Amino acid sequence: MLSLLRAGKDGMANAAKLTAGSSAMDPAGLQYLPVIPDPPKIVCVGLNYQDHAEENKLNKQEFPTFFGRFNSTLVGHQQPIPRPFLSDTLDYEGEMAVIIGKAGRHISIANALEHVAGYSVFNDASVRAYQMEKGQQWTLGKNFDNTGAFGPDFVTADELPPGGKGLRLTTRLNGQTMQSATTADLIFDVATLIACLTEAVRLEAGDVIVSGTPAGAGFFRKPKLFMQPGDVCEVEIEGIGLLRNTIIDEPR
Amino acid sequence: MLSLLRAGKDGMANAAKLTAGSSAMDPAGLQYLPVIPDPPKIVCVGLNYQDHAEENKLNKQEFPTFFGRFNSTLVGHQQPIPRPFLSDTLDYEGEMAVIIGKAGRHISIANALEHVAGYSVFNDASVRAYQMEKGQQWTLGKNFDNTGAFGPDFVTADELPPGGKGLRLTTRLNGQTMQSATTADLIFDVATLIACLTEAVRLEAGDVIVSGTPAGAGFFRKPKLFMQPGDVCEVEIEGIGLLRNTIIDEPR
Repeated sequence: MLSLLRAGKDGMANAAKLTAGSSAMDPAGLQYLPVIPDPPKIVCVGLNYQDHAEENKLNKQEFPTFFGRFNSTLVGHQQPIPRPFLSDTLDYEGEMAVIIGKAGRHISIANALEHVAGYSVFNDASVRAYQMEKGQQWTLGKNFDNTGAFGPDFVTADELPPGGKGLRLTTRLNGQTMQSATTADLIFDVATLIACLTEAVRLEAGDVIVSGTPAGAGFFRKPKLFMQPGDVCEVEIEGIGLLRNTIIDEPR
Repeated sequence: MLSLLRAGKDGMANAAKLTAGSSAMDPAGLQYLPVIPDPPKIVCVGLNYQDHAEENKLNKQEFPTFFGRFNSTLVGHQQPIPRPFLSDTLDYEGEMAVIIGKAGRHISIANALEHVAGYSVFNDASVRAYQMEKGQQWTLGKNFDNTGAFGPDFVTADELPPGGKGLRLTTRLNGQTMQSATTADLIFDVATLIACLTEAVRLEAGDVIVSGTPAGAGFFRKPKLFMQPGDVCEVEIEGIGLLRNTIIDEPR
């Protein structure tokens, strides 16, 4: 996937030719990797739905909040997410992932969507005790091994509304809907995220922006709700796909 | 360097053989890359000297504060660090970098130093307005392109005190000493950092832990002091080496 993205529009066109009319593989026989196993950068966005910012007691967001995820933390569709033996505060965060196709820095909002190759589904699973209580930054709680579920589908930008806007995002735990929003509710939309991020950072093909989660994560519920071994967590985005992972106990 | 580190003890032994007795190259003819240009992970530590935590108005640190740096932000010795045209709040942070040689997760403090291949010098140059005012996390202000100066020397762990402890770290701006501390003053020493970090994250060969900066950064001075185009910033660590970078205006 990374090589394909780096090959740019020609790479994508060739891939489209190769897959056109080909018979779909039987998904039962597949083991899924993260849709891009080795993105050069994974930039996550915090507090990017108004309802989630409010449950965090933060009102007006004037600029997006970015933080990093190491690509060593990624896991594929249907692969297990371990609940750490050091903390039982594992939580889900359903999000739309934006996959960069064209490099750039200081990208304007007007030009930003030209840099997007496509979209996928992400579960930014977070260990809340480490995010909130261990040190002054969220990074550690957002970077436990095998907690960044990513995939299975890569949908090219031309198949979706501009900026992936207006798609229903739903997170279910054991079949029960926990988060439901539309990507039209992003405080900072995809074009704005790219413009703000590239004030600092050059993006390159294969980079991933994980665009934020809506209200309803377990940590903010009363009482708090965390994922348990045996739980099945699904994130589904209309027009993109369904990402499903089972929670296991971290092997000792 | 990354291939060498991945080759483990044998790789290092072969490198030692190859360089033993070889005539040193004339540094005048060299252009320096970051000492490892492409670390799989760069994990920075905040608030890890008591005097710096205090100037941040934070007293007792119970656990290290970690955040990430993208490897696309690295720059070598003698390469320019650009002051962004969007902000004049570029600041230095002299730090000791710890280079991982042996992979592991859930590493104990007692075993941690076995995982260290060696040490280098880092200037975690930070754009304070973006770190402190743009969003709720430090990540963006710590990840401007070409602001992570790293090198030039890689000193193997066997040539230094265990954990790189007790080395004088000095940051100079235009020849004037701005930061001076010893690495014995780290709140969380190198072994503890590795143990805490690997509660969450598997480390691999070539990963870098940037261990924190002491008091004296420009942002915390009264009046505040930021780096200007033409400034020369040096970070020197006793027994490791001297990292020198000149500040330029970001090219438009």
